[in-house]
Amino acid sequence: MMKALGLEGIVATETALSLVDGERGELVYRGWRAKELASQYTFEEVVYLLWMGHLPNQEEADHFRQKWSQNRFLSFSLCQLLEGLPREMGMMDTLRTAVSSQAQGQGLWPPNKEDALAILAQVPSIIAYRYHFLQNSSLPKVRTDLSHTAYFLYLLYGKEPEPALARALDAYFILTVEHGLNASTFAARVVTSTRSDIYSSLTAAIGAMKGPLHGGAPSEVEGMLDQIGDISQATEWIRHRIIAGDKLMGFGHRIYKTNDPRAQALRNVAKELAGEEKRFRLALEVESIALDLLQELKPGRKIYTNVEYYASVVLSAVGLPTELYTPAFTASRIAGWCAHIFEQAEVDRIIRPQSEYIGPLPK
Amino acid sequence: MMKALGLEGIVATETALSLVDGERGELVYRGWRAKELASQYTFEEVVYLLWMGHLPNQEEADHFRQKWSQNRFLSFSLCQLLEGLPREMGMMDTLRTAVSSQAQGQGLWPPNKEDALAILAQVPSIIAYRYHFLQNSSLPKVRTDLSHTAYFLYLLYGKEPEPALARALDAYFILTVEHGLNASTFAARVVTSTRSDIYSSLTAAIGAMKGPLHGGAPSEVEGMLDQIGDISQATEWIRHRIIAGDKLMGFGHRIYKTNDPRAQALRNVAKELAGEEKRFRLALEVESIALDLLQELKPGRKIYTNVEYYASVVLSAVGLPTELYTPAFTASRIAGWCAHIFEQAEVDRIIRPQSEYIGPLPK
Repeated sequence: MMKALGLEGIVATETALSLVDGERGELVYRGWRAKELASQYTFEEVVYLLWMGHLPNQEEADHFRQKWSQNRFLSFSLCQLLEGLPREMGMMDTLRTAVSSQAQGQGLWPPNKEDALAILAQVPSIIAYRYHFLQNSSLPKVRTDLSHTAYFLYLLYGKEPEPALARALDAYFILTVEHGLNASTFAARVVTSTRSDIYSSLTAAIGAMKGPLHGGAPSEVEGMLDQIGDISQATEWIRHRIIAGDKLMGFGHRIYKTNDPRAQALRNVAKELAGEEKRFRLALEVESIALDLLQELKPGRKIYTNVEYYASVVLSAVGLPTELYTPAFTASRIAGWCAHIFEQAEVDRIIRPQSEYIGPLPK
Repeated sequence: MMKALGLEGIVATETALSLVDGERGELVYRGWRAKELASQYTFEEVVYLLWMGHLPNQEEADHFRQKWSQNRFLSFSLCQLLEGLPREMGMMDTLRTAVSSQAQGQGLWPPNKEDALAILAQVPSIIAYRYHFLQNSSLPKVRTDLSHTAYFLYLLYGKEPEPALARALDAYFILTVEHGLNASTFAARVVTSTRSDIYSSLTAAIGAMKGPLHGGAPSEVEGMLDQIGDISQATEWIRHRIIAGDKLMGFGHRIYKTNDPRAQALRNVAKELAGEEKRFRLALEVESIALDLLQELKPGRKIYTNVEYYASVVLSAVGLPTELYTPAFTASRIAGWCAHIFEQAEVDRIIRPQSEYIGPLPK
């Protein structure tokens, strides 16, 4: 019996899905660098890679996209549920309840890719349906010709997005779809390890994702950029903040001790779009000033831009309200959870640590 | 970095809630033997013990029971949800979705006992509401004068249960409310460790409980007793089964290497009721014959009756259909999950193991 409270440093499972190398700043999905995938492939192709183990050829990709987009319709009972939940319920609670409600009675073990694809395809529709319901607007007509991320934006805003913005969101989805054994992925694997169904596992993962120590903290990067307002103010604002000992939002990461590969890749996306989006230019300048000032004022401390910094910038640029940032992260990561659920079902071994009793003994 | 696939033998957390001592056959809740609690206290008092750390005095017990029973009403929107879910959806899926739907928008951290009590009080109502809906019958009027377990039976059957049967179900609830760091409890703690809310954590736990490797396997003890039918057939039936190398349902346990204390305590309940219930007499005789035959035919192998054996007998005696066995187990264990959620929130430390990448490296 070994004690490892919080399980830090304990390898609970093997995975062929991703390598998170914090020392080298590498994030690898099944042998491919995530940043290269983000610049050269689509989200659909990367999900195929995670689920099937290899990138699809043209025919496989077409077939996968087709099956995917055919799952975009929401059932009448799901729409009723989305309208019936209390209006004050948050989007993550709504999403957790909606996914839970999709379980059917039969054939739930082992988890299969058809069920996974149905849920994955419906998440943007669930979010957008509820979003429109709360705003007394209505969901636009289903379309099957748009990519997953373009369709998400189309559903929210009722019109086809600018290709560059859809591409930016696609890169965000690719870079956040998978990241080793974080708390939500681990929760999904624990539930799967009892041979429970994919809906139970995804529901558990959504619940964990909601936690502020995981994906559920409101992004404060936006607020920081808002406060800075203009590039001309940046140096003074940031210097004052660092000297006051305040945390700079979007810098530093628990695992990555060098450049976060996801931040780097999203920075490239931001750079490409910088001409079109003032916000991207501000973000790029603020980052550059902040890193210089951190080096000047905190020499020797290795602090780098983290994924949240550019994630916020991209999500804001595509027009998402901040309360949809964690749901959007979920819409991406759910594909990674599914890949872990398939893998765990193959392993088929219960995950069950011990507890140590520290209470009184009976007389 | 240490590798412990499945986390076997790793202590992931300390707990003051329960001690599961498999060698000595002891199950202790906060310093009290579960079997003594089951014979001398009520489920409400044991939940109080788990949540508050001590058994209640008369005033505390009255107050707790009163607050508990005031939470028995189901909201209109919850009733709508229970009617709107597809009819083919199973009771565990229904329960998971219903609990998920109760999350409110505000004040969700840290988890509090009021929210926990509301959910705990409503679980029997949720199960019974859905049960009646599917049978086109209706839920009887809310009553606040019955104990939790008597109320559960009242809701299902529309009349007050025999006191002896309510007492038997109460003992079952007390003996199954808590059992260390099993998969569902662990899932609840993982989710809580991200500072997510109690609804997310309970939803995760229900999903894990549903797994056949945890609480979700259909009980086969009933089928065995049905097949034996009469005490006169028992010896021959069991001898044949053991010689054929078949598993006897309800015997043997992963942890307990001696008498399972829960089985012992439930056996005592069964004995008290044996005069009134033929089924109890059959179960007691079958157990005695089976243990004798196991000793004769498999000498040296320590095989004891497990909790499932008498759990099935009790749940069958109180009239539960087998599809409600796992939901009934959930209705009891949910109080234990809440206790773990409170404890985990106090610890406030993320539970996050590592994975080891075994896929290819990028070129």
